[in-house]
Amino acid sequence: MTASVAGAATEATDPGLAGLGLRDAARLVASGTISSEELTASCLARIAETEEQIGAWAHLDPDYALMQARSCDAKRAAGDPLGVLHGVPVGVKDLVDVAGLPCERGTILDAGRRPDRDAHAVSQIRAAGAVILGKTVTTELALYQPGKTRNPHDITRTPGGSSSGSAAAVADCMVPGAIGSQTNGSVIRPASFCGIYGYKPSAGMVSRRGVAPLSETFDTLGTLARSLEDAALLGDVIAGYDAGDPWTRPAGPPKLLETALSEPPVRPRFAFVRTPLWDRADEDTREGLAHLCAALGDVDEVGLPDVFERALDLHGTVMGAEVALNFAHYYERGRDRLSEKLRAVIETGQRVLARDYLAAKEQIHTFDRALNDIFDRYDAILTPATRGEAPGSETTGDPAFCTTWTFCGVPAVSVPLLVGSNGLPIGVQVVGRRGQDGRLLRSVRWLAAQLVTRTGRSE
Amino acid sequence: MTASVAGAATEATDPGLAGLGLRDAARLVASGTISSEELTASCLARIAETEEQIGAWAHLDPDYALMQARSCDAKRAAGDPLGVLHGVPVGVKDLVDVAGLPCERGTILDAGRRPDRDAHAVSQIRAAGAVILGKTVTTELALYQPGKTRNPHDITRTPGGSSSGSAAAVADCMVPGAIGSQTNGSVIRPASFCGIYGYKPSAGMVSRRGVAPLSETFDTLGTLARSLEDAALLGDVIAGYDAGDPWTRPAGPPKLLETALSEPPVRPRFAFVRTPLWDRADEDTREGLAHLCAALGDVDEVGLPDVFERALDLHGTVMGAEVALNFAHYYERGRDRLSEKLRAVIETGQRVLARDYLAAKEQIHTFDRALNDIFDRYDAILTPATRGEAPGSETTGDPAFCTTWTFCGVPAVSVPLLVGSNGLPIGVQVVGRRGQDGRLLRSVRWLAAQLVTRTGRSE
Repeated sequence: MTASVAGAATEATDPGLAGLGLRDAARLVASGTISSEELTASCLARIAETEEQIGAWAHLDPDYALMQARSCDAKRAAGDPLGVLHGVPVGVKDLVDVAGLPCERGTILDAGRRPDRDAHAVSQIRAAGAVILGKTVTTELALYQPGKTRNPHDITRTPGGSSSGSAAAVADCMVPGAIGSQTNGSVIRPASFCGIYGYKPSAGMVSRRGVAPLSETFDTLGTLARSLEDAALLGDVIAGYDAGDPWTRPAGPPKLLETALSEPPVRPRFAFVRTPLWDRADEDTREGLAHLCAALGDVDEVGLPDVFERALDLHGTVMGAEVALNFAHYYERGRDRLSEKLRAVIETGQRVLARDYLAAKEQIHTFDRALNDIFDRYDAILTPATRGEAPGSETTGDPAFCTTWTFCGVPAVSVPLLVGSNGLPIGVQVVGRRGQDGRLLRSVRWLAAQLVTRTGRSE
Repeated sequence: MTASVAGAATEATDPGLAGLGLRDAARLVASGTISSEELTASCLARIAETEEQIGAWAHLDPDYALMQARSCDAKRAAGDPLGVLHGVPVGVKDLVDVAGLPCERGTILDAGRRPDRDAHAVSQIRAAGAVILGKTVTTELALYQPGKTRNPHDITRTPGGSSSGSAAAVADCMVPGAIGSQTNGSVIRPASFCGIYGYKPSAGMVSRRGVAPLSETFDTLGTLARSLEDAALLGDVIAGYDAGDPWTRPAGPPKLLETALSEPPVRPRFAFVRTPLWDRADEDTREGLAHLCAALGDVDEVGLPDVFERALDLHGTVMGAEVALNFAHYYERGRDRLSEKLRAVIETGQRVLARDYLAAKEQIHTFDRALNDIFDRYDAILTPATRGEAPGSETTGDPAFCTTWTFCGVPAVSVPLLVGSNGLPIGVQVVGRRGQDGRLLRSVRWLAAQLVTRTGRSE
């Protein structure tokens, strides 16, 4: 079977209110049509039904979630001003601190860890009125060793990593939206495998304070949702300047949703980029992208300069060195309780020379300039998100198709447009210019609308 | 002879207009009392008289300087608005690009290099109306191999480095002010040895665009002048946000001079800090600082946490790694034409591991916190600038007393308050809280005024 343009997979049973998106749910709670308690209870019921199979949650405290929901309902009843996510449940990757909930980061070495402060992004989610539903499974320290989570589309397969639980929970309608993080391919890859939208913002847009650091150069919080608009809205909520993370810069609100919903002033132009990794892509992906480009029309194939062949090496050098430093305390106190995969990453990183590390970081600017040349002519790049469908559960899949874009710090979205030969979803990655996240999201929305118009959308 | 509180050394012959400070000169040019051409000619005459002995200038083009001066005079005659340095000559270290002048950075490997764009700081100096008098001698690539410059107070001794020419030219009244740079101790040390004011701003205050990079973490442009007010004024001129150097941050003007001239709201409190290097200080310095503290009264001795013993190592690790990267092209194309000292720095830097580099950089925050505890109680730290008087010309002197403060990115001023047993000047280093440069300069001005009042000032 060749790939075709299609929507996310269907769910086995009707999720009820839990099937609402973030925006719809927020609207209905705000209008009093439903209560936050009903909505939260519906999510919890969905979880009770499917969690045993999916394993998306690392920590879930239904009472804590319902308490927040009742508090939201009380605030609304009291006439308090409502945030954009008032009363709506959100999942948070277990790499990100939530005050009062465990945060064990997928490693036995953090067993029992329970932070008493919210991460900056979590405090913004709370300020928007959301209910923190619980902590979603991360792979071991957000690297490559899989957690317990399975792909809702086929439980013999991986949901992808490292934001495994966030992607699976959203795809299975356990929660309308969730926060993930990407240091290599950890938002885009699980979004692709789980058939949902994953949005990795530009470097520096979202504070990482309160998030376990892997690599200061690349760590990026992102959003997972079942619609582009919801991914954008959640991005609006977590973005912003934080004096506690010098990665962020003072800037006005990014207005992601507002920009995404606006009409493009002219027809967006797309560049199809195979990348030097094209041979790693499955036939599903190669054909799917070809069909997509044909369906869109007026897409130019654009090559990348030769230096992009070094992207994986350069990214690995920088990330390895930073991981070796950030995880030194785990390595010192319990290397035998780390997975072999993680130990290998750390030990390789320990041997990186500073001059190679610095030289690799400098290349980011070279890459940036090359990409800017493309973005002077095109609104966005179309490129694979993953090799193809989710592989088996012994791995979390190959992040390589995400690495280049993470290296460059450009914003990316995985759009659930393709279906592979096993009937499983495959995302298309759309990449924009650094700092122009709203424009990227607008181009993605335009693109998705074109496909619905031209080909009809099969649900 | 024990050290005593005294001003800068006297000059052999009357420098005439060239002996004016930046502020006085700017005032007299603005009022039409003197012309920029007269002033510039006076500086050139002074240079003609003493340069053969001092060797402060790497590149000097009297016609180019006089042309600028005449253009300043014409603008004033035409009623154009005048910048704060209108018509006043300024020297620029030969590490900093000036469009149209050679910039050979003290190495034969850059022989004939002639940039066609001004460094950001130079463009700001020009925008303030100054005359770029010429390029002052730097040590080889701003590291440890001495250039040709000699100390105006004793030509058998070093002027200090690496901003050797800037300090010597200012001390000898060849120019009223000059730009230097500090990566370890390259503004404070020559200022101390030459008996003038040297001001190293906080990390991130001045753009380094157009300055040969040694170490992105530490490279800091600074100012050298014969009065604190002049050092502050020149600091005001070069400070500011530059999108081309991510080290700088958007911020309002620092108002250094305005703050320096203001009355402290309460009596400034000073902490006397010996640092773990105290044993390296000469008796001149140790006794001089003791006398100074006694003269001021109400100065507390404050110890630094043990971690400060690692400052030199940590600074060396970060700087070494960054120098190895930034100078790789020199090393590749002509290591045999680099000094042995420089080769050794590069080769040691080449062996630094990324994790050690990153761990060393992280310690900056630990140091910062410890210093902030001190600055919560004190306005400024009093500490040695150098071991003592300038040593012989085979070296540029020990930068160690500057290293800790450069490592932390805090602002520092060398104040010419002491005279050593050979009658040569010795600076006192006054250090402030990061980002509070104006407050530091105000405290220094208050301190200097106290000493004049209490002890009389010997010229």
